[in-house]
Amino acid sequence: MPSRDRIEAAIGAALTRAEGPGAPPRLAAALRHAVLPGGARIRPTICHAVARACGDPVPSLTDAACAALELIHCASLVHDDLPCFDDADMRRGKPSVHVAFGEPLAVLAGDALILAAFDVLSRAGEAEPLSALRLTGALARATGMPHGICAGQGWESETEVDLAAYHRAKTGSLFVAATTMGALAAGEDAEPWVELGARIGEAFQVADDLRDALMDADALGKPCGQDAALGRPNAVAELGVEGAVARLDDILGGAIASIPSCPGEAQLCEMVRRQAAQIMPVSLVRDLV
Amino acid sequence: MPSRDRIEAAIGAALTRAEGPGAPPRLAAALRHAVLPGGARIRPTICHAVARACGDPVPSLTDAACAALELIHCASLVHDDLPCFDDADMRRGKPSVHVAFGEPLAVLAGDALILAAFDVLSRAGEAEPLSALRLTGALARATGMPHGICAGQGWESETEVDLAAYHRAKTGSLFVAATTMGALAAGEDAEPWVELGARIGEAFQVADDLRDALMDADALGKPCGQDAALGRPNAVAELGVEGAVARLDDILGGAIASIPSCPGEAQLCEMVRRQAAQIMPVSLVRDLV
Repeated sequence: MPSRDRIEAAIGAALTRAEGPGAPPRLAAALRHAVLPGGARIRPTICHAVARACGDPVPSLTDAACAALELIHCASLVHDDLPCFDDADMRRGKPSVHVAFGEPLAVLAGDALILAAFDVLSRAGEAEPLSALRLTGALARATGMPHGICAGQGWESETEVDLAAYHRAKTGSLFVAATTMGALAAGEDAEPWVELGARIGEAFQVADDLRDALMDADALGKPCGQDAALGRPNAVAELGVEGAVARLDDILGGAIASIPSCPGEAQLCEMVRRQAAQIMPVSLVRDLV
Repeated sequence: MPSRDRIEAAIGAALTRAEGPGAPPRLAAALRHAVLPGGARIRPTICHAVARACGDPVPSLTDAACAALELIHCASLVHDDLPCFDDADMRRGKPSVHVAFGEPLAVLAGDALILAAFDVLSRAGEAEPLSALRLTGALARATGMPHGICAGQGWESETEVDLAAYHRAKTGSLFVAATTMGALAAGEDAEPWVELGARIGEAFQVADDLRDALMDADALGKPCGQDAALGRPNAVAELGVEGAVARLDDILGGAIASIPSCPGEAQLCEMVRRQAAQIMPVSLVRDLV
């Protein structure tokens, strides 16, 4: 089965379990709204590619790691969109969860998606409990404090912010989780895969800053110009558009150079290039500058 | 070391890790505010007692299970107190997290505490990964959808609510987690311990409804009369004060009768009686009715 189909099947199965008989129906509907139809599924696609490059010895654990990653990503979007953060009305081209279901169900949907991620890992891990437990730890640390997504978001409530630390936590941590969890699901060490994830995350953040600064809301499927409007740190403000585009190219070269030696190394390099083309608005940016 | 000290040490260690170097300081302070000084630590105390009754063969795993439970409980209080839910200004006799730190950090503190709980389990579990993984699953299911705390809270956004299902999910699920996680930490089956947790949870909820209906805010350390003010289902509205007190006695008898045969059965019965005396405002209620 192609990676994309395996990832969607794993996410769908997790969602079906969370909506199980006896669940409060509106919260169940809010979970579905938050997760389907998905975005580019970039993080699980990277995770899957790394696991396959390492031989993918326990496919059910690979799929669980991918689903868990995406559920956490969706949870972070739901909470990020809340009125007390970005107050975003749209997400992926439709109303954000709090607009469609109200704020209480949006808070709960985010919480429940985080928990569904750990449920997925625990269920898939009985055959390889040590790998599953390490996946659990990697995901918890990528998402929580002191250096995960929550920490990154927390920096937005501080008066003095280190731009690099902020992006590393808010965006980079889940890309590091994507590469390291791919390796862990395949029974490999996580450490050699940290740099690849970190560099992809960095590239993604610069690309996102460029999109936020340059695109309009219709093309983006969510409000744009948010960073400037909210006075938040971003690469375009720091480096200008041309500087940010040059940084993108550097980072991507480094990402590909960092890939550890593994059976599927060549295909993985190719996948990173493809993902890069998809997430980086390079041609758009070059037209504009 | 007494149970209480082991539990506090494990919670303190988890908090210190979450606040680690490089964390955003205000979010770190919000976590500490949410967790310390603690309340009665009833759930981890029950979990510890069950693990000890089963021999407590891996004390570090028992302590991790207790800390994880309490972190989740604290997370649920932080999110419950948010303006979009209870809008509670006080908790444990001091300002609630969103009052002290603002709403964004309260949302993030709840999220980060959930994640810290799973980090604790993953770190403690390397020696007994299968037990740790089962603890992860038990905690995720007790907290998430379709039947955990989030589901319980989600029922408050529905127009038709089954009172028993609502209480089972919102309050009972974490007591079931307390007893079953105690057993799992000791390498035992969870199933025989479900009933004890369910009955303690039921008793606790009835006691809480009585306190909410009868006590004043100073004695309670948080706003009272919330259920009636918000039109929420509760046992006093359903049964009256005397009926609710009689139900308490019934439930407690059933809880003690349900305790499975185990090495520390007698001490465990005694502990349940002690906890019951602590959480049940029986003498207070008898003075009032």
